[in-house]
Amino acid sequence: MSQRPDFTQAPDPETHGYVFNHVMMRVRDPEIALDFYTRVLGMTLLATLDIERFSFTNYYLGYASDEARAAAPSDQTGQLQQMFSRESVLELTHNWGTESDDDFAGYHDGNSDPKGYGHICINVPDLGAACARLERLGVTFTKKPDEGGMKGLAFIKDPDGYMIEVIGPETVAGLG
Amino acid sequence: MSQRPDFTQAPDPETHGYVFNHVMMRVRDPEIALDFYTRVLGMTLLATLDIERFSFTNYYLGYASDEARAAAPSDQTGQLQQMFSRESVLELTHNWGTESDDDFAGYHDGNSDPKGYGHICINVPDLGAACARLERLGVTFTKKPDEGGMKGLAFIKDPDGYMIEVIGPETVAGLG
Repeated sequence: MSQRPDFTQAPDPETHGYVFNHVMMRVRDPEIALDFYTRVLGMTLLATLDIERFSFTNYYLGYASDEARAAAPSDQTGQLQQMFSRESVLELTHNWGTESDDDFAGYHDGNSDPKGYGHICINVPDLGAACARLERLGVTFTKKPDEGGMKGLAFIKDPDGYMIEVIGPETVAGLG
Repeated sequence: MSQRPDFTQAPDPETHGYVFNHVMMRVRDPEIALDFYTRVLGMTLLATLDIERFSFTNYYLGYASDEARAAAPSDQTGQLQQMFSRESVLELTHNWGTESDDDFAGYHDGNSDPKGYGHICINVPDLGAACARLERLGVTFTKKPDEGGMKGLAFIKDPDGYMIEVIGPETVAGLG
């Protein structure tokens, strides 16, 4: 199948207003994961939700401008409502206890058998500068932009081993 | 850990302009998957990319307004550049041949062992109306809004078995 995009076909009006809000993955230790996604990748922790009955906590992260951070609600309900209304949120679920369980084998990244999920992708304004900074911060690369068959993009790992693609303005030119 | 969001902590200025662009998962049959995400969930196919050397095709989907569809570039490079610059894109990767391989076991959804990835989430303006429509269209539910311990949200499955959470205005009130 090599169907080309058809931008003229309008979606069902009953889907009007649908928002692709978030993607969820499980993390072993939220302190380590939150440090990575905020300090290293520059996301903001938008909201937190403890579900005590099922012994887990969700952490919601996303990119937020200075204006958005300054205008963020101070109460949890307001934070959740605002966060659920926006796009490109990363939900990290922490099942309590994994961080201190020596027998916990870790989570599966989806890129070895059994395969399924692949990665998230961050687009950065300057891929070379971003990769130099990530190296300086000790981040694990599985592919640097000048390695492999697809130039102009990198793959790094988050603390749980999930893959993150990093692309930049030159990525489209390096494809194909 | 019950750390509350700190909206005042500014991210590293070197991460300014970073965009959380997409999430990738593998699909067995792109015709079936694209039909589901466009006709059923109302997304638009924003761009398509064949990587012949590695025998796969990426399909990029997202919600697009009538104005965005009307203003979309007609050439593939323009479509890719515009798509990589936006948020909340779903990348579906099709490794050629799986759709006609009777021995292909299917992809792993991440919610049974080995666990990892969980789901994507769509926020809809009217959860009851959306769920009634999805039922009418024959979509598989793993949880309806009034079932289970967490009210006001649903879980459905896409054609490959990946979970999709569906939330609405009443979701925050039903949490906790």
